[in-house]
Amino acid sequence: MPAITIDPHGLFETRPTFSHVTSSAGPARFVATSGQVGADVNGVVPNNLDDQIALAFANLQRCIDAAGASVTDILKLVYYIVDYDHKNRPHVKPLLAFLKGHRPATSLVPIPKLAKPEFLFEVEAYLAVPQRELEKVDVVVVGAGLSGLKAAYDVQRAGYSCAVVEARDRVGGKTWSVDQSDGAGRTVELGAAWINDTNQSEIFGLVQALGLETVVQNTDGNIVQQDINGDLSHFLYGGQPQALAEPNGAQDVLAIREKTEEACQAIDIRDPVRTGGDLDKITLEEWATSQGGGKTALASVAIWTRVMLGLEPRDVSALFFLDYCKSGGGLVQTRSDQKNGGQYRRLVKGTQSISIGLAGLLKSGSVHLNSPVRIIQQNIDGVYVTAGKGSYLAKRVIVSVPTPLYKDIAFQPPLPAAKLELSQQNKLGYINKVILRYGYPWWRQKNLCGMLQSFKGPVAVSRDTSVDGSGQFSLTCFCAGEPGLEHSKLQQSDRFKVVVEHIKSTIGAGMVTPEPLGIEEWEWSKDLWAQGCPCPASPPGLMTQFESALRSSHGKVHFVGTETSYEWKGYMDGAVRSGARGAREVIQTLGNPKL
Amino acid sequence: MPAITIDPHGLFETRPTFSHVTSSAGPARFVATSGQVGADVNGVVPNNLDDQIALAFANLQRCIDAAGASVTDILKLVYYIVDYDHKNRPHVKPLLAFLKGHRPATSLVPIPKLAKPEFLFEVEAYLAVPQRELEKVDVVVVGAGLSGLKAAYDVQRAGYSCAVVEARDRVGGKTWSVDQSDGAGRTVELGAAWINDTNQSEIFGLVQALGLETVVQNTDGNIVQQDINGDLSHFLYGGQPQALAEPNGAQDVLAIREKTEEACQAIDIRDPVRTGGDLDKITLEEWATSQGGGKTALASVAIWTRVMLGLEPRDVSALFFLDYCKSGGGLVQTRSDQKNGGQYRRLVKGTQSISIGLAGLLKSGSVHLNSPVRIIQQNIDGVYVTAGKGSYLAKRVIVSVPTPLYKDIAFQPPLPAAKLELSQQNKLGYINKVILRYGYPWWRQKNLCGMLQSFKGPVAVSRDTSVDGSGQFSLTCFCAGEPGLEHSKLQQSDRFKVVVEHIKSTIGAGMVTPEPLGIEEWEWSKDLWAQGCPCPASPPGLMTQFESALRSSHGKVHFVGTETSYEWKGYMDGAVRSGARGAREVIQTLGNPKL
Repeated sequence: MPAITIDPHGLFETRPTFSHVTSSAGPARFVATSGQVGADVNGVVPNNLDDQIALAFANLQRCIDAAGASVTDILKLVYYIVDYDHKNRPHVKPLLAFLKGHRPATSLVPIPKLAKPEFLFEVEAYLAVPQRELEKVDVVVVGAGLSGLKAAYDVQRAGYSCAVVEARDRVGGKTWSVDQSDGAGRTVELGAAWINDTNQSEIFGLVQALGLETVVQNTDGNIVQQDINGDLSHFLYGGQPQALAEPNGAQDVLAIREKTEEACQAIDIRDPVRTGGDLDKITLEEWATSQGGGKTALASVAIWTRVMLGLEPRDVSALFFLDYCKSGGGLVQTRSDQKNGGQYRRLVKGTQSISIGLAGLLKSGSVHLNSPVRIIQQNIDGVYVTAGKGSYLAKRVIVSVPTPLYKDIAFQPPLPAAKLELSQQNKLGYINKVILRYGYPWWRQKNLCGMLQSFKGPVAVSRDTSVDGSGQFSLTCFCAGEPGLEHSKLQQSDRFKVVVEHIKSTIGAGMVTPEPLGIEEWEWSKDLWAQGCPCPASPPGLMTQFESALRSSHGKVHFVGTETSYEWKGYMDGAVRSGARGAREVIQTLGNPKL
Repeated sequence: MPAITIDPHGLFETRPTFSHVTSSAGPARFVATSGQVGADVNGVVPNNLDDQIALAFANLQRCIDAAGASVTDILKLVYYIVDYDHKNRPHVKPLLAFLKGHRPATSLVPIPKLAKPEFLFEVEAYLAVPQRELEKVDVVVVGAGLSGLKAAYDVQRAGYSCAVVEARDRVGGKTWSVDQSDGAGRTVELGAAWINDTNQSEIFGLVQALGLETVVQNTDGNIVQQDINGDLSHFLYGGQPQALAEPNGAQDVLAIREKTEEACQAIDIRDPVRTGGDLDKITLEEWATSQGGGKTALASVAIWTRVMLGLEPRDVSALFFLDYCKSGGGLVQTRSDQKNGGQYRRLVKGTQSISIGLAGLLKSGSVHLNSPVRIIQQNIDGVYVTAGKGSYLAKRVIVSVPTPLYKDIAFQPPLPAAKLELSQQNKLGYINKVILRYGYPWWRQKNLCGMLQSFKGPVAVSRDTSVDGSGQFSLTCFCAGEPGLEHSKLQQSDRFKVVVEHIKSTIGAGMVTPEPLGIEEWEWSKDLWAQGCPCPASPPGLMTQFESALRSSHGKVHFVGTETSYEWKGYMDGAVRSGARGAREVIQTLGNPKL
């Protein structure tokens, strides 16, 4: 139930912006926000009022989302406006857009200044979030991404009751497939996109079981290579750049790839720390440099870490990266867009259809959306899970959120130090897929496969993500790692312009390229419940100390997620495998189910 | 569970002072405070910002205590700061001290002025207090002082379930015994201190049952008498001052004592109004004057009312005082520190050990601390008691708080007029025991018993409250009545200085006296849940009209407390007697217990 708005007879009209009185519909969880101002995550404040107002409302929305609340739960808003002019009320339009018809009780406070001289506008909210009664189940799964849904499915199939508690307003986690606004089925992927049908048997098994249609990734034709000096060249998919600006550049790229593949293959994914030697003592950059790679080779290595982890080679342990590749069979196989490779097939209706399909196989009412979990408390009764819309009492809990998000949950008893270190030190990178939609695959006309590989950025790699049969034609441009982060500081419209221009000047060089019909993106690093993508990565030393704690349970709480998988870490297949493992752990402890 | 603080990913860092969002951990009782400013109980406002901030936070803490809440329940703070300078933030340090690590959502509001021109700082809070589920019991006892604990003990012993709901964070009420900071067992009494082992059979029975050790009050040697003109004289304990400044002063003191004793003895404590004649029509001062006492005699009477009730002779009905003395056997016996007297024995580990001992005899989990009762509502279900951490449904309720505090509880149906009048017109006096700790009992070296009796004040009476066997040596100085109140307006450090000086210049006159090793006090009149001590007293007329209502029950709600006892009113013995009486009343109505 949303908050009740009350318009007492005999008081003046307040529509459409507010109401004189509000009330929660019953007992509720109470939420308060700090005064939200127009300052971004770095404290940067736009110098005009309109932009500050827009940013303050965006920040307020983020607070409300983080609290597992909704705009309709707002009981009270208070605005503080510097140099308020009652004849000019620029906050009203963004306010109405923010409220979407809800009318909380409101006070407007004209004020000479705010906490910092540059602040011109501040808004704070008080909310009441209706709470369900305590629900008792055998198992609570925290998170309705692929790993959580798979765990819940296996638990329910074994005969136990299971609730899936999800922070977002949708299932799927980082599988998020969106249609064009015309709803014609021209789906694109804001998150995870690729599978294969051979060594990714877990995810492909699900795809088959759910009867979902796939298409093969287009690799016909040439890749466009942009060199460190910006020069362009073409080479056939599967081949290598022939000549690069740096003397020996092309040879170096080949050499570092071969050495990396060799080092990968020496690692046992079930015991990377023992088999990885001293590789966890240095960064991937240090390792690559030690292998004699020059500037071009390092640029090539940077493409890998940017596109695969959203990070730079200096951010990650050499062991972490090599083990990560090995979990997908090795560098070459993981990076391949062809048969057996990591990017071989896509889903016509998008990968979220796997998550939606899995959720559909759960008992009705099992999935609880908009319910971020904030407390996981173990005592003799079992495990209490306190979430946005109410609490649960379970015998076992499976946590499927990414490792770095553990620290946003209050565990009682607290997590062991090793898990806390993993949560605090594992890094989530920056990958933004900017998807340019076109009316036709114009790049194919010049025998290009749609792949750009740029040592300069901001687009590190692009891929043809069309689904020809649906009339969906697109290039997905990976803005990732440090160049991606730099690019992300631009406003969205400028970001899009830069990407379109980069594609025009590389893939489109020497031809008239059409303007995109539409552009889409989702910056996962700014996403409340992802905080980055696709997978947390470890700096040097962390695996040696704590890798063994990654999958260990904490009392009656178990942990899954793609980074905990031995195979295909960071991929959907790894997520599904980890979910199955978590379910097995829990089922073993629960004894005979009440079937 | 404390309030949850949430740091939404993507918003700027707020540690250590606040968080962007807070939430109650579940459904909660909601508490709001007014803006608290730097004004004391009399409205006096310090003229500098730092002192105002300190006082505002102290006032806010009092609000939070009064609401049965904790700092960690705060969801939101709003500051209003006049002439705010973002480069100079003097509120931050006291804020951090106040919050002790909690980080509520916060808004800071610079403002040109506040409700009064002298206010420079204001802070308001919104809190959510977690609530337990409704608890159903046979009996709820409100208050875990001696009367309440005794009632609960008798009720449970009779086989009924009983919860004791206490506002404070400890049991004992006005029995509060504290150790020195070194924890060596040198206990002193901030509240009730004395018992005897003859006519205080109820309290002494408990002491014996609990196996608690007592010591005899020291009365060896001389009393130091300070006359109305400040002159000092000595007389042996049990004797009388021989020569006083006022002509006939010494004889008048003796005479008024004898007349008072005689008037006392004429009163039937079971029916004081009928046996007291017209004594309730006049104040004690009027009565003493009518008995021919001069200025010195009145000074002597004032010592009695100050030390026994914290009031002046003009504040109390003559009947009330005489009946009060008679309840302890008469003026002389009540005031005596020797065998059969009111101040004959003390407890080595302090009187709170009686309360703690009694509480320890209750069923585990019976006592609920930090839970002030605000509503007592009777309907066909029984009696609902709404307290700080949750509500109770009982068949009967026993209220043990002092009569003047009834008006802080919302009774439904309302209290009868007689009880309300008692609550509103009974007065709680001012007695502050300033306890000077010494390394040795230096006063005994001059054959002094440690008793000062001063007609001037601020110390009206002092007593040797040492426990020699524990190495605890102290003088307890009663600053009471009007001189005590005047003295209380000083800052604590100045108050202590004045008391030390008073003792030096009287008991220590003519000798080198050591400085105290430590000083302790508790101003019960400023205590939220006592509001004064030891016992409410009646002005003229109140007993005649309403004395019969003192012990009467109100529907299913019964009333105990030392002032409702026939014997030893204001003493621990009276408290225990009243508790036993309340339990008897309730047990009679409850029928067969489920044994």
